[in-house]
This record gives sequence, C-alpha cells and structure tokens, in this order.
Amino acid sequence: MSITMADLGKAVLKAEYAVRGPIVARAKELERAGRKIIYCNIGNPQALEQQPLTYVRQMIALCEYPELLEQAPAAFPADVREKARALLAGSAHGLGAYSESKGLGFVREAVAAFIRGRDGIAADPEAVYLTDGASKGVQAALRLLIAGPKDGIMIPIPQYPLYSATIALYEGSPVPYYLDEGADWRLSRRHLEESTAQAAREGVKVKAICVINPGNPTGSVLDRDNIAMILDFARERGLAILADEVYQENVYRAGEKFTSFAKVIAEKGEQGVSLFSFHSVSKGFLGECGQRGGYMEVRNLPADVTAQLTKLQSISICSNLPGQVAVYCMVDPPKEGEPSWELYRQEKGRVLDELRSRAKLLAEGLGSIPGIQCNEVAGAMYAFPKIALPPGKSDEDYCLDLLEATGICVVPGTGFGQLPGTAHFRTTILPPTERLREVIGLIARFQASYK
Amino acid sequence: MSITMADLGKAVLKAEYAVRGPIVARAKELERAGRKIIYCNIGNPQALEQQPLTYVRQMIALCEYPELLEQAPAAFPADVREKARALLAGSAHGLGAYSESKGLGFVREAVAAFIRGRDGIAADPEAVYLTDGASKGVQAALRLLIAGPKDGIMIPIPQYPLYSATIALYEGSPVPYYLDEGADWRLSRRHLEESTAQAAREGVKVKAICVINPGNPTGSVLDRDNIAMILDFARERGLAILADEVYQENVYRAGEKFTSFAKVIAEKGEQGVSLFSFHSVSKGFLGECGQRGGYMEVRNLPADVTAQLTKLQSISICSNLPGQVAVYCMVDPPKEGEPSWELYRQEKGRVLDELRSRAKLLAEGLGSIPGIQCNEVAGAMYAFPKIALPPGKSDEDYCLDLLEATGICVVPGTGFGQLPGTAHFRTTILPPTERLREVIGLIARFQASYK
Repeated sequence: MSITMADLGKAVLKAEYAVRGPIVARAKELERAGRKIIYCNIGNPQALEQQPLTYVRQMIALCEYPELLEQAPAAFPADVREKARALLAGSAHGLGAYSESKGLGFVREAVAAFIRGRDGIAADPEAVYLTDGASKGVQAALRLLIAGPKDGIMIPIPQYPLYSATIALYEGSPVPYYLDEGADWRLSRRHLEESTAQAAREGVKVKAICVINPGNPTGSVLDRDNIAMILDFARERGLAILADEVYQENVYRAGEKFTSFAKVIAEKGEQGVSLFSFHSVSKGFLGECGQRGGYMEVRNLPADVTAQLTKLQSISICSNLPGQVAVYCMVDPPKEGEPSWELYRQEKGRVLDELRSRAKLLAEGLGSIPGIQCNEVAGAMYAFPKIALPPGKSDEDYCLDLLEATGICVVPGTGFGQLPGTAHFRTTILPPTERLREVIGLIARFQASYK
Repeated sequence: MSITMADLGKAVLKAEYAVRGPIVARAKELERAGRKIIYCNIGNPQALEQQPLTYVRQMIALCEYPELLEQAPAAFPADVREKARALLAGSAHGLGAYSESKGLGFVREAVAAFIRGRDGIAADPEAVYLTDGASKGVQAALRLLIAGPKDGIMIPIPQYPLYSATIALYEGSPVPYYLDEGADWRLSRRHLEESTAQAAREGVKVKAICVINPGNPTGSVLDRDNIAMILDFARERGLAILADEVYQENVYRAGEKFTSFAKVIAEKGEQGVSLFSFHSVSKGFLGECGQRGGYMEVRNLPADVTAQLTKLQSISICSNLPGQVAVYCMVDPPKEGEPSWELYRQEKGRVLDELRSRAKLLAEGLGSIPGIQCNEVAGAMYAFPKIALPPGKSDEDYCLDLLEATGICVVPGTGFGQLPGTAHFRTTILPPTERLREVIGLIARFQASYK
C-alpha cells in the first residue's frame, strides 16, 4: 500500500494520549465480549448517568429548530424562548452558517460579561475565541508558541496528556515541572526553577508555562498566593501562561474557591505576561462533553500576534455553532426570578452536591485501602492516588490487571507523568454513588491480593 | 509582553487562508461603517438565505432535547421521531457524552451503508472517521502523511487554500500541479508528470496527491477516465490520494455525474493505493456549515497506520455530536413513502434547482463581460473567472478595488494559485438569484471602467 508505518513522522509516532490509550482499547474489547466495564478513564459525566441541564438543551433545540417557538411554545419557559430569539437574532444566520472565525460576536460578548462578573475585572469580547472544546484552544495556543524543536513549554507532572501529545505533534520540547504531592499537589517556586535550569542545560528556550487549575489529574485547587507566585516567575523569565481553568466550577473543599489567572493579572496591573486561559462546557456542572464547546481568552498579547492567532483559527473556519450556544448557556445562566431559574438551580445543585460527595467518598475510600495513598480531591473530577506495587510490576501492569480482574478502567500514572520511583493511577469521581462504592470495594480487594 | 512576533515560527507566519484573509477583513470594516456588503468569498449558503432542511433540524433538536418526543410529538413526523429514538439508543448516552474518537458507531454504520448504496461497493464502518467538517479530516490525513520538510503533497493549482495552509502548518512541501483551464480545468497526465519531475529536482519526496472533485474553486467535475488516470499515476508513483468530495451533490451540468474515487478503486480491485476521502454536511443541498459535520473514509491503509490515525483523532477526543447527527441525516435521508419524505423532497429540490440555475446565470453572466472569461460551472459552488487587468494592477488590487467600489467581496486568484501571468477571482454562486444578477451587473460596470 502507498502508506506504511515507515511514512509516518516521529511527531505522530511520539504523540500519546493515555486517556484513550491501550488500556481503554482493551476495555472495549472486553466489553464487546460481554464483560461489564466501569469507565473511570475519562471525565465524561453524561456517559456515567449525569443528566444534562434542561436549560442548555432547550436553548440548543430552539436555536437548531426555531419553528418550535411557534409550534411548541408550551414546551419552553418564556425566558428560554426570549433568549433563543435574542441569540438567533444576534447570530444573524442561525446555526447553519459559518460564524466569524473567533465565534459569534453575541456569544463572545456574553463570555466577556461572564468574566467581568466572575472576577470584577475588564474583559474584551475581541480577546475571546470560541473553540470546539477547550482542547482546540490549547492546541491553537501551542501551535502559535512552538516555533522549533528547542522551544520549550513547561507542563506539570502529573499533567493532562493533551499537553504532552500536542507538544509532540508540533515538535516542541516539553519542560516538565513537578507538582508537590506532599503539599496537596501545589506548585513550588523551587520546582519551577529546577525545571527551567534543566531546560537551560539542554539548550531549550522556555516560552510558556501550562498550569491546570483546578488540577487534572491531581484534584488540587491553587490559591491566590500560588497564582501570584507563578505570575512573578513567568514575568521574570519572559514566559507566557496557559491557564487551563476548565474545572473552575468543580471546587469541593469547604472554604476553597477558584481564582482565575485573569483576575490576578488584572488586579496586579500586570501587562508583561501574555495569558491564554481556557474554559469548557464539558466539565463544571454542565458536563456537555459531546457538544464540544469552549473558549480561550487572551490577555497581554500584541495586536499583530493576536492577528496571527485569528488567522490560525480561520484555517478551520470556525468552531461548531451548537457548541457556541452551549458556551452561551454556560456564561449566561437563568437568573433568580426567571421562569427557568428554579429548575436550573435544582439541577445544578444536584449535580454539584453529588460531585462533592463523590469526591469525598472516593478520596477517603481509596485512602483507607492499605497500600494506597490519596490526597483530598479538592476540585476537578479525578483522584490520582499513589499505589504500592509488588516487585517487577509497573503502574501499567496494575491498571491492566485491575481491568481484567474487576472491569474497572482507570489510567496509569505513566500517562500523566509522575516522580520516578512512584506509581499512581487516575480515576474519575463520576460514577453514580452506589457504583463508586462498588469501585472502591473492588479496588480494595484487588489491591489486597495483588502480587 | 512575553510573546511577540519574533516568537512565532515560520510555519505559523507562512500559513495563509485567503478565503478569510485581508480582503474579507476589509469587508467587515466597511460593513461596520455601514456599507452593504455581498459576501461571495466563502461557500456559506445559509449566510446567503439558503434555508436549512426541516428534517435535519428536527433530528438535531430531538436528539438534543429528547423530552420533546413526549412534550411536543405533533411538531415532528413519526419517522423523524422514530429515527431520533434509534439514534439516541444507538449513541448510548445522547449528545452530551464524548463518543468514540472515530465518532458514534451508529452513525459510522450509516455512512458505510451510504457509500455502499452510492457506489455499489463494499464499505467498512471501522474505516470511517466522523470529523468537525471535512477540514478536520483533511488536516488529520496531512498530519499523518507529512513527516518532514521534504515530504511533498501534490495540490491542484488553483486549489482550496485549506491544503496549502495545512501543509505550511505541518511544514511539508506543497507540490503544485496545474489544472488545465482550457480543458474545463481537468487534470492531465502531462501536468502531473511535470509536477513530480519538478519535485524530484528539488529533492522533494512526493507522498500524496490531493484532488478536489467537483472542483473548488474551478467548478469542474471529473469523469471516470480522469479518475482512473489519476489512480494509475498514484499507483506508479506510490502516492496516497486525498479525495475532497464535499461537493458530490453539487453537479449541475446535464448528463454529468459524480464518480467517487472509492468506487473506481473498488471496481478496479486496486489494493495498492491508499485513499482518504472526505465529505461534509456544509455543502451539497444541506449547506449546514455551522454544524461542522463531516467524515473521512480510508481505504487500503495498513492496520498499524489506521491505528495511528485513530490515536491522532483521540487527542482531540471526538468531533461534535450535533455535527455527527447532521452527518447521519445527510447519509440516511427520508425515503419515499415516509411521512417526512414529501417536504424533504421539495426542500432538497428547491435548493438544487436554485443552485443549478445560479451556476448557469453566473457563468454566463460573467462570461459575457468583456475582459472576463469564465468556464461553465459544472459543479461545486464557485466560478473562477479569468480577468484581464490594466497594467500594474494585481488580482488582489482588483478584488480590493471591486470591494471598495461595489461592496462585493470575492477572493483573488492568488489565494488559490494560478498560472503565472494570469489573474482570476473566486466568487460563490450562492447569492439569491436577484442579488446574483445585481452582482453580475456591478462587476460588469466595474470591469468596464477599471483602469
């Protein structure tokens, strides 16, 4: 055949995405053969019985088929009908036309208003790019930044493998920095400095640092001081920041709250550090993974560079319009007193309550198993417990053996990176509570007999 | 700021996408200042008043908000309700969960059935990848094929700039081959050979040939002999074929019909030539650009290479689910006798009749203007007329001056490539008939006085 493995480049061969890697492929095989599999490998809430918010689905359905405004008005609260009308008018051509490459102006205005409301800072709709999920925004930012093989991008270890895979595809250099497992997976100045020192020894020019907050897979939530420290570090080294903030609504620990990089940058009047921040409809309490909606906001980016970013986005023309509507729903939810408010409040509350109780259940459950250590899951959707392994076994063996023995599909720590000599796995907190108890019980039994 | 133009790589700087380039930016400026602009720069039917098919929108609305099956059954024909139920059951988790990276198996089965029905050949759902529009499929195939700067991809001149932009981004070598304007923009063996000979002189290893059929921007439709010739050429040179077949439903010339590369490959029993073919919901008679639905089908690709392609797709997790539903609607339309058939037939017929009459109107109208030569628009959605320019003027000047003088936004031939010494522009056939007459009249007046 005209194409064989010898034709493929090392960028393609090197890129790995463990969240959908060989263990998941094996799980699919077992499932086809009739085994019951519990998929804990990916943050895909609606595949694990989370229900979509009625408001979001009503809005998308109305925008897709506006005839329903006339034909079935009773199926939609008045405020939803009004918002759908406004969005359709704002879109000019509905959901069937390409939008501007950045996305519909109407939705970008709403995103900017959301950021203003969330952080009490200024926000410019022209600095907002609507993307097919956050992944596509991250890929655009990295495409912009990686100019050659010695361009380095700092990524946390453990990290979400989108980062390592995309850096491999664009043939840049990943520059790992360790998160401190003993200090709730926080970032420390010392680890950042060790990381850039190592890069310098390898002749790598570090251009940006990626930060995932709340953390994936770690579940940590950074406080304002930690963010300010990172910002100072980035300024001193001339780095851009990629802030992956897709779990900003997933903060569970009492008293903890999400702080955005945009807020700290704006409050400090920082104008030197370029920021790309990312949000998504896939996580939070919407969990609308399939809609592929997200946005990227840029700050402190020169106009000529912004123009290049817009050009890059134009090559794929625009992100999908239903996903843009989902983003609109995320940033402009029903308000108290509106007809759709009460149901929205209930549905949102139920999802967040469940996530909060499952985060606690999972971290405590895993932590109580001899041979497993698990930090509190303060945020996001995952636990990343440390496991003691029998001699000769790797974390990949462990996860594969766990799958074969129990039907539980988790991802080995190797896929995210971990301190040499340690072993972990990532599991989501998403299975329904009863199933999650079952998962914990099965892992406990497996761990006790694993050798 | 931490990022400046000096940080950007040449891949980013080099990539150009004229269809949304500087002339379109200028049009937006004029529009904001109150000028009426007629956007003929992009194949975006619903931005030019084409109506969506009711069937497609009913299906997406039901799949997004299945409660409508109970709450407003009267708003949907029985067959649409039944199909939406089947699709939701086939999806397992509805539109809110990530699907497999290739896309929902249920939809891929329908795509395979569509190919079998269209071509009378075998088709495998596991060889189908659902993508966010065809663009993302093309990008995936090129990412797979380009391993280094001397890897060449043959592209037609004129071409659709997605190809040149993507090759630039992945830092491969574009290997241009000329289409023969004097012979209805057909491909000739001689031009293909000249092209590979030139590549060989430059030390470029040609790995694939891209063919756009029906042609964008040329409007040509390739016959079976032409396709067989390309296939022979690809086999002899060990090339893969990328067949961009997104305009397969847009064939207007009487007696002409679309022939797929898959059909010719299967009928000839060709097993040596790897094929990637692309289709989209954005064109045809659906015109659902905003939904970003499409698919790629691969043939004659070794299993290990296919696995790498699947891995690449997994890095962005999956394409958007509403777009996957739109693909389903495209490949499994209502059948005669079903309740939704009559309206579907009417709507489809109206769109295709209008496109056919506009293709004729535009080609004849432009062709009758002194100083403009225009081939028949046999297919696709564009005319690419040749223009006589006053001394010292470029096609870019022409398009910018046309925009300033008339408000008509077309794209200069430079953005697609053209034989040195010739000048062209691309315009869509999409404006409503009355507006299209106005466009032709305005261009005629502009051309007469342009100096």
